[in-house]
Amino acid sequence: MSYQDQAARTLALLSATPDWRRVRDLRPDLDDATVTAIVEEAAAFAEGVLAPLNTVADRIGCTVSNGRVVTPDGYGEAFRQFAEAGWLGMDVAEEHGGMGLPLAVQSACEPLFDRACVALMMAAGASRAACHLLASTADAATKATWIPKLVAGDWAATICISEPEAGSDVGRIRTVAREDGGIWRISGQKIWISFGDHDMTARIGHCLLARTNAAPGTRGLSLFLAPDRLDDGSRNGVVLERIEEKMGLHGSPTCALRFEDAEGILLGAEGRGLSQLFAMIEHMRLQSGGQGLALASAACDIAEAYAAERRQGGAPDRPAPPIASHPDVIRQLALMRARTEVVRAGVTEIAAAMDRAAIEPDAADRERLGHFTGFMLPLIKNFGAEAGFNVASAGIQVLGGVGFTKDWPLEQYLRDSRIISIYEGTTGIQAIDLLTRRIWRDGGIGFDICLERARAEIEAATVPEAARAREALATIDALRGAMMELAATPEKGLERADSFMRAVWSFVSIWLSIRLIEAGCDEDATRRAFPVFLAELEMHDRLCR
Amino acid sequence: MSYQDQAARTLALLSATPDWRRVRDLRPDLDDATVTAIVEEAAAFAEGVLAPLNTVADRIGCTVSNGRVVTPDGYGEAFRQFAEAGWLGMDVAEEHGGMGLPLAVQSACEPLFDRACVALMMAAGASRAACHLLASTADAATKATWIPKLVAGDWAATICISEPEAGSDVGRIRTVAREDGGIWRISGQKIWISFGDHDMTARIGHCLLARTNAAPGTRGLSLFLAPDRLDDGSRNGVVLERIEEKMGLHGSPTCALRFEDAEGILLGAEGRGLSQLFAMIEHMRLQSGGQGLALASAACDIAEAYAAERRQGGAPDRPAPPIASHPDVIRQLALMRARTEVVRAGVTEIAAAMDRAAIEPDAADRERLGHFTGFMLPLIKNFGAEAGFNVASAGIQVLGGVGFTKDWPLEQYLRDSRIISIYEGTTGIQAIDLLTRRIWRDGGIGFDICLERARAEIEAATVPEAARAREALATIDALRGAMMELAATPEKGLERADSFMRAVWSFVSIWLSIRLIEAGCDEDATRRAFPVFLAELEMHDRLCR
Repeated sequence: MSYQDQAARTLALLSATPDWRRVRDLRPDLDDATVTAIVEEAAAFAEGVLAPLNTVADRIGCTVSNGRVVTPDGYGEAFRQFAEAGWLGMDVAEEHGGMGLPLAVQSACEPLFDRACVALMMAAGASRAACHLLASTADAATKATWIPKLVAGDWAATICISEPEAGSDVGRIRTVAREDGGIWRISGQKIWISFGDHDMTARIGHCLLARTNAAPGTRGLSLFLAPDRLDDGSRNGVVLERIEEKMGLHGSPTCALRFEDAEGILLGAEGRGLSQLFAMIEHMRLQSGGQGLALASAACDIAEAYAAERRQGGAPDRPAPPIASHPDVIRQLALMRARTEVVRAGVTEIAAAMDRAAIEPDAADRERLGHFTGFMLPLIKNFGAEAGFNVASAGIQVLGGVGFTKDWPLEQYLRDSRIISIYEGTTGIQAIDLLTRRIWRDGGIGFDICLERARAEIEAATVPEAARAREALATIDALRGAMMELAATPEKGLERADSFMRAVWSFVSIWLSIRLIEAGCDEDATRRAFPVFLAELEMHDRLCR
Repeated sequence: MSYQDQAARTLALLSATPDWRRVRDLRPDLDDATVTAIVEEAAAFAEGVLAPLNTVADRIGCTVSNGRVVTPDGYGEAFRQFAEAGWLGMDVAEEHGGMGLPLAVQSACEPLFDRACVALMMAAGASRAACHLLASTADAATKATWIPKLVAGDWAATICISEPEAGSDVGRIRTVAREDGGIWRISGQKIWISFGDHDMTARIGHCLLARTNAAPGTRGLSLFLAPDRLDDGSRNGVVLERIEEKMGLHGSPTCALRFEDAEGILLGAEGRGLSQLFAMIEHMRLQSGGQGLALASAACDIAEAYAAERRQGGAPDRPAPPIASHPDVIRQLALMRARTEVVRAGVTEIAAAMDRAAIEPDAADRERLGHFTGFMLPLIKNFGAEAGFNVASAGIQVLGGVGFTKDWPLEQYLRDSRIISIYEGTTGIQAIDLLTRRIWRDGGIGFDICLERARAEIEAATVPEAARAREALATIDALRGAMMELAATPEKGLERADSFMRAVWSFVSIWLSIRLIEAGCDEDATRRAFPVFLAELEMHDRLCR
């Protein structure tokens, strides 16, 4: 039932998202009934096919045998079914074998799949990201060879970025690519590669950054596709060094790979690797936010159901009331739910805006939308991740001792979610991106568009909370000016980057709470949590001063 | 090295704690050199004997074989050495075979042991708690038989409270005790019993609450000691049902026991079980705070050391600087350290006050000190627990991807610490205790004493932060009045209990930060974090209104 509840919540939020209405206008081929059927079918697939794998993925996990990763029983078959049903290539263009659906629909479905088995979905996410990357950078032949195979789940792909000395600092990548008789050969070590090896597909293509010239930092980096097997079926120079032993996500093998004169295909222009990668990183940030949302959604549902059943307290000579009737438990559940639904509203908002940024007929509109989503993505990436972890932890607290046991999946959600605020850019990196690129470099255009949207929605709102939201608008507007001034003293600014990002997210939470309350989406919980968002905004604003 | 650093920090804080000076005046048998030697020796013992067990305790954990719990290799020997060195009975009276040291000294050492292997220390903690419980409730013969054996580590003990239908709500305990020919026989099921069974000692005594009369709620409960073996060595009616599969603390077997007409010794007066237990619960709350402090201390040290070594960022053609030089990392490390040291100051403050409450010659002084510690214990229990979890999580964030792996112990600290804010009374229970008992029932006497102490220290302080601390005093004083008024509308009060507890802790953090800064204890980190404590106080205060 709760998968369908999540589908219903998602569909209600799509309807409440102004940009989604615009996307539908621009995509007359889509009607509401189709979208509803897709999201409900995703819920059924997640619950029926993926969810049964989640515990075994955690308990047995992935192992290494004869230098290859062995995935849990059932993984290969589920991955095949996932691709076959079209889910993997939902938002890949039809010309490449995908379904060509809007990102907003993909982002509505993905948290259902992630909820069911976030570890296995790391494989699908990597292949999907590679499809987008190849579509935007590869030559026609490579596209035609690879993308349909990836969409079909016959082959898989990875994204390799980090190296031992190059984590957050990609400019220190040492892997090199040399052209030799018209063939690029890549040598170096890459780490933190999700599904860097596995037994689910016949071939794995590695998308990676390597240094092709002597320019320091990111300017010398180019993008390559290096498959584990060459076209003739022989092994390429890609060696699995190890998989990491982790706190969670045991069902996602995190690989260290060594490239030894591995043949690779140059993607796009030489020396343009990082900027070409960036469009894909934006997709992955949204996806990370969706992963956090997925685990937060599951934790909310479990805690609410448990609290309605578990009875404690009251007069000792009378039957105990459900703990869901105790004031402090009501508070806990409301805050969990509101934090979760704000993230859901945020994911929907950004995905629909990204759709518009791709298909609006007017170039100026597309550019403005690009600024808006560029500003919002660090937020949804980080606070989606934090919601996953914090709501899972809050769910454990509601359940008490049993929440700490493996009799319930909350402890797995806590373990699985802890990495989300680290990979695809840590919290610190998102905060620095927001401040130095979106505010200082871009002059805060994306922020201004965010404030315009929020203002329009808050001004039009009729709920009583709107008055306090208007005060919040004034607070955040003033903060915008203060942060802009800090461009002159960047060190001071960087000290405040985290508080600034949190202040902005508190404001976005206030804005999207107005949307939720107006639309009657988890209205009670959101109303109860609203003063918390206001108080958090004040706190973070104060810490920026 | 870091164990000795922790010892040094602890000793510096003891010196800075006014009540500790008074304890030394009242205990002329103790001199500074002795106390220093004890704490440093505890650090060496923790590092040398206990720490090597921590990983194996987590990875292999406890198992059940032939109906008995099997502990990890080395546990029995370490437990024996721990007791033999006198650590188990440090603060147990000398007449019972203990060392008769102040609680402040015990509380200085315990976080060193917990840091090294918190799971094994759950066994020592239970035996020690039982020593105190027996000393205050048992008849002379039982005391003479049991306490020296427990102190020596020949026997062990447990505290059994929870049952499946009686978790936070102890008034619903169903286990019954019937007197039959002068012998009490106990029947029922108990759960969440740490080290409810194990193979480290020849005998295990279970301290438990059982119902001896028909009075509803807690009034019908009496306290018993039921050993697993009778005096003649035969088995008593105590059956191990299972051990829980948990997220962490794998090295501490969490047992479900069934009592089947088990013989037990009545401790103290019939029907007075819960109130008799309460003195011991106070000890266990302090101990829980110390466990959180232990894991936070370890996480800080690891993150600081890692950040000083790990190099990222800076100009790509120059060697990378250590990440400890990046503004956002400086911020993260300072907040971790300050949150940790505030808890250390709090544990020291309360332990010294509990010592005074036991030995001050004037009864009125003792009563006032009892009110103060009663008010402070829910705070240190909960925020010690939260510091353990949050600082471990923050440490993972500083390390990035490697923090999520089992190559570092931070992920184990995170998993181990998650239960601390649940057992011995959840966060919600502590918040309700603070508001309903310490404020409404006691008229806020303990709070007033806390404010008096804080005021005296802040007024005398010379550091620039003192001015802001005085404003915080005014804020919390006003909040005291507002919360008192809510006694008339308890439902409204209970909705705010969590925010109230957090506001008080923010204030206590401000007060103790002044102490830390004045004394030069982690002055830089505390100074950097000070504005965060001020902002948090404002936020929680606002949410109480």
